[in-house]
Amino acid sequence: MGTNKKILQRGIHKIILKGKEQGTIMKKSVGAKTLLFPTPVLMVGTYDQVGKPNLMNAAWGGICCSDPPCVTVSIRKARYSYANIEKHKAFTVGIACESKMAEADYVGIVSGRDVDKFSVSGLTPVRSEVVDAPYAAEFPVVLECRLLHTFEIGVHTQFIGEIIDVKADVEVFGEDGQLDIMKIKPLIYDTSHKGYHGVGPLLGKAYTVGKELQS
Amino acid sequence: MGTNKKILQRGIHKIILKGKEQGTIMKKSVGAKTLLFPTPVLMVGTYDQVGKPNLMNAAWGGICCSDPPCVTVSIRKARYSYANIEKHKAFTVGIACESKMAEADYVGIVSGRDVDKFSVSGLTPVRSEVVDAPYAAEFPVVLECRLLHTFEIGVHTQFIGEIIDVKADVEVFGEDGQLDIMKIKPLIYDTSHKGYHGVGPLLGKAYTVGKELQS
Repeated sequence: MGTNKKILQRGIHKIILKGKEQGTIMKKSVGAKTLLFPTPVLMVGTYDQVGKPNLMNAAWGGICCSDPPCVTVSIRKARYSYANIEKHKAFTVGIACESKMAEADYVGIVSGRDVDKFSVSGLTPVRSEVVDAPYAAEFPVVLECRLLHTFEIGVHTQFIGEIIDVKADVEVFGEDGQLDIMKIKPLIYDTSHKGYHGVGPLLGKAYTVGKELQS
Repeated sequence: MGTNKKILQRGIHKIILKGKEQGTIMKKSVGAKTLLFPTPVLMVGTYDQVGKPNLMNAAWGGICCSDPPCVTVSIRKARYSYANIEKHKAFTVGIACESKMAEADYVGIVSGRDVDKFSVSGLTPVRSEVVDAPYAAEFPVVLECRLLHTFEIGVHTQFIGEIIDVKADVEVFGEDGQLDIMKIKPLIYDTSHKGYHGVGPLLGKAYTVGKELQS
């Protein structure tokens, strides 16, 4: 290692392939940026200090533990949802979907300090009966979370929520009784061009397509 | 809130919509599960205790801070990569892509304790010149990270890496000089059916499609 790469000029790296493929690959440095693909479109539901339901749009998050089942969302201190989570020690995570793209985007444009986002967007707030947080009925899947940990990282604080229950619309289950991603139609956020994409068809099964390479 | 939902039977919730849409939604409880859509397919590159490069497949992770730019991956203690990250205080995160689906899956099936995954899969290990970790040349985008924090959550430990540089193949940049998700063709992991999916076309621009709802 180390011998198969040559820095040709500032930011361009020529790599000689030594594996299955022949030839070279040219990689360009783009600096220290948050470029990950894909990122999710998470609808974070909270109650504010007086109990008004709020919803924000977060792309910085994901599953972080299988047991206890946990999801993380990172939120800036300046965001209205920040103090909401601190007060109620709970939040929900709705999965934004294609048919609710405008609503999902809207809650990321305005602040709950200024408006009642549920009222303006026409979404229906529902009080979780397992945690002290609301969710929007119109999103097909929702994770109801109690705050487990709060980690300060930098401009973002990471909230880790233990998933107490997941609720999903009866229409998004497959015939096998499991959630069907092609019925959920979750949005994907492209951090590079700030665009929303859909999910394409199944390409292969995990723990299966790689078996052909086993020696 | 609270009045618009009725638990009809164990696990089925009937919600009367009070927003823009009319009618009812039936939601079903599926329990405390790690069901988030989408999750990524992250190729975590590390050196082991004797400097052998290794690669693992992680779906539990995502961006967790904008400044410093950070990415998180959650790894079980039993995984070979765990001690590698602890020793070298560094890892890389490659973005698995459609054309390398078999390789991405393969590194999630076998352990670096037993085999040299790079050698068997035919991937080319490249030593990062900014952190003490390798990456596979064949994945189109790679984040080079130094370990910033280690958080014990449960069966998974969360490693937070500060992104020192991002390198991407010259072919995956658009005409505007930015990374193009449709050229990267990242894989999406479906946690429900354990399948790999592609990314669909652009559906709308963020901070734009929601403006129509602003009052």
